[in-house]
Amino acid sequence: MEEIAKRIAQLAPAVREQSPLVHCITNYVTVNDVANGLLAIGASPIMSDDLDDVDDIARLASAVDLNIGTLNHRTVTSMRHAGKVANAEDIPVILDPVGAGASRMRNEAVSRLLEEVQFAVIRGNASELGFIAGLEVSTKGVDASEEDISRDVVSLARDVAWKYNTTVALTGPVDVITNGTETVRIMNGHPMLKSVTGTGCVTTALVGAWVAVARSSVLRAEEADLMAAAAGAVSMMGIAGEKAFAEAGEKGTGSFHMALIDALSTITADDFMQMGRYGQEQL
Amino acid sequence: MEEIAKRIAQLAPAVREQSPLVHCITNYVTVNDVANGLLAIGASPIMSDDLDDVDDIARLASAVDLNIGTLNHRTVTSMRHAGKVANAEDIPVILDPVGAGASRMRNEAVSRLLEEVQFAVIRGNASELGFIAGLEVSTKGVDASEEDISRDVVSLARDVAWKYNTTVALTGPVDVITNGTETVRIMNGHPMLKSVTGTGCVTTALVGAWVAVARSSVLRAEEADLMAAAAGAVSMMGIAGEKAFAEAGEKGTGSFHMALIDALSTITADDFMQMGRYGQEQL
Amino acid sequence: MEEIAKRIAQLAPAVREQSPLVHCITNYVTVNDVANGLLAIGASPIMSDDLDDVDDIARLASAVDLNIGTLNHRTVTSMRHAGKVANAEDIPVILDPVGAGASRMRNEAVSRLLEEVQFAVIRGNASELGFIAGLEVSTKGVDASEEDISRDVVSLARDVAWKYNTTVALTGPVDVITNGTETVRIMNGHPMLKSVTGTGCVTTALVGAWVAVARSSVLRAEEADLMAAAAGAVSMMGIAGEKAFAEAGEKGTGSFHMALIDALSTITADDFMQMGRYGQEQL
Repeated sequence: MEEIAKRIAQLAPAVREQSPLVHCITNYVTVNDVANGLLAIGASPIMSDDLDDVDDIARLASAVDLNIGTLNHRTVTSMRHAGKVANAEDIPVILDPVGAGASRMRNEAVSRLLEEVQFAVIRGNASELGFIAGLEVSTKGVDASEEDISRDVVSLARDVAWKYNTTVALTGPVDVITNGTETVRIMNGHPMLKSVTGTGCVTTALVGAWVAVARSSVLRAEEADLMAAAAGAVSMMGIAGEKAFAEAGEKGTGSFHMALIDALSTITADDFMQMGRYGQEQL
Repeated sequence: MEEIAKRIAQLAPAVREQSPLVHCITNYVTVNDVANGLLAIGASPIMSDDLDDVDDIARLASAVDLNIGTLNHRTVTSMRHAGKVANAEDIPVILDPVGAGASRMRNEAVSRLLEEVQFAVIRGNASELGFIAGLEVSTKGVDASEEDISRDVVSLARDVAWKYNTTVALTGPVDVITNGTETVRIMNGHPMLKSVTGTGCVTTALVGAWVAVARSSVLRAEEADLMAAAAGAVSMMGIAGEKAFAEAGEKGTGSFHMALIDALSTITADDFMQMGRYGQEQL
Repeated sequence: MEEIAKRIAQLAPAVREQSPLVHCITNYVTVNDVANGLLAIGASPIMSDDLDDVDDIARLASAVDLNIGTLNHRTVTSMRHAGKVANAEDIPVILDPVGAGASRMRNEAVSRLLEEVQFAVIRGNASELGFIAGLEVSTKGVDASEEDISRDVVSLARDVAWKYNTTVALTGPVDVITNGTETVRIMNGHPMLKSVTGTGCVTTALVGAWVAVARSSVLRAEEADLMAAAAGAVSMMGIAGEKAFAEAGEKGTGSFHMALIDALSTITADDFMQMGRYGQEQL
């Protein structure tokens, strides 16, 4: 198995070259950053959440991003439909189960989506993935609790990968990317990323863009290097966070937020080789 | 009665220490700033507006913020329910009656909310509070009209406080905080705050965070220093506006906006003592 | 016919002097920038999309902006109603047909709106206006495709102007403003404007503000200089894009985004005379 940093650096330029269209059904809190994050890395966002509209838009897309941050019954129905359309068309679908574990409605929506849709990647924090793994979890709002973080996150991520035959990107102080067999730990990032809303949502959308180009470079879906795609997107946010903190962290969270988008828009394939901090293991 | 600046400065550190979860049912125009404003001061935002979801989320929260800026029938129903759940659970509820007086639907929504929910604090401008006080008002959009401003805002705020047994934060060129008995005028702020959308909405959410910590520091709700909480949050925005203008005002409203979040994220308890300009009176 | 730059420069100060209220039913992706863009140029935004609410709010407004970026059945109904109310009250209505051509639902919504509402200005890219002109179009998401751009955009814009008896603002590498008889090309702008979501949506809202003041300066609607209004607003965004790139373009798209709002908030009537690059022709 080639070193993950190389696989990421090889995939990275394709995002800007191919500018994949990512259809996002996402929350209205962070949707502007999701769109600007995708544009910053050279991808194309399209947001559409009406059941009738998603039927066409999902088919146009190279990846579909489903994020339940501000779910309602109408948009959950649209998410389920978009996921099924994308599955039928062999378009990769990414799940961001925001706040799973925090309410019955979120839990039911996530359960239903996992039943009906095959996800290429699930990106969440330890609380959310803990709910998905069927663990008892205590959730405070939409952020991972201390208790959750202390859990063995690699085991948790692997459990979810096996259970749902998917690739999992568990983000936190250390990020874990796994398909159940290969596991990559990412030590990039900065605590200030938690002081700006939406860095998780943006990461998930970036995963969508990377997965789209990983998928497009192979003939059959199962050959796509989803590990490199997910690890690339997640470490991209981590590296951008480090750069943003160095540039503007002391000024405050507003400047950091702006510098984060700047960093996403200027990051190069070389940055992954120079700044990426990856730990790789085979099961 | 202790000097208000001291009461504010004593309460201030608790927001960052306790990181209260504020459940916001708020408008989609300014929701990103509301979330980032809460994160900037160390609180935790959670946005949720589906009737089924708010039932669980409101119970998790330390304060509930109801803002009718882009109301629709679905979300007004959710607001009414969240308010009632929070009342039953002794969780403080804050109202931002955006544009009250400007349309029948907004008027009816506010009337209904005031009938069904006991608010810890109502934060609005002179037009909106004028509607609530039952005055004839002329409203231009969602900003206070000149005519409204010239009215005796202290009387108006007191009327609303008495009528609804609540604490009122009337914001404008001079802010007035009153529970009907004690009244604080705040002379902080900068005119440029009106050139960025959402500074009112963010202020209301900050009031939510401050009220949550004021509530948590006492055994019984009626002992909570809501005056210090509301005056603290409102002057926090005013002081941040002054700092942001000094830092970036001449560059334009985009830089000012960013500097405002920076200022919220770096403000200290000491700033209230040094920069807070309060006028205090007892009835 | 007076030179367009002069007509624009004469109209420009009125926006800040009159601060027209622009009622926007717009998408949740870029709505914050739409509001901040309007505030930056001295106008007043109000967002409202519930059918019951728009009935009152549209009447208060000096212009109504309908943008289908994240349309759903509920808000399309509200848009149709707001357009009809505004028409009846002689309030100018502006259309932004985001993504027309990309889905049946968007196509039907645009067709219905064009049937039922008389628009003062339609602002879109070549793909969207191509759909409106009845051409076969290929659309990739919400951005104009290369193929579309190579089309004769002046002919296309004139076709739409004639077909719907309206003024068309077709934006792209070169912007074309036409009422079918008079045509203005605008050579301002910067490619980086495409790396920030919402620059099109903001432009449409600015058109609303400019049209409102053009309308208010004459007795009868047909005397309003809609060409100067649309060309003024579109070139305002182009000039702001050039200034923003000069100020912050090398830092990245986050800084550029902020500098763009700064530039909108500091642009002067003189800038149109100095920096505006207009090509004018009569049919």
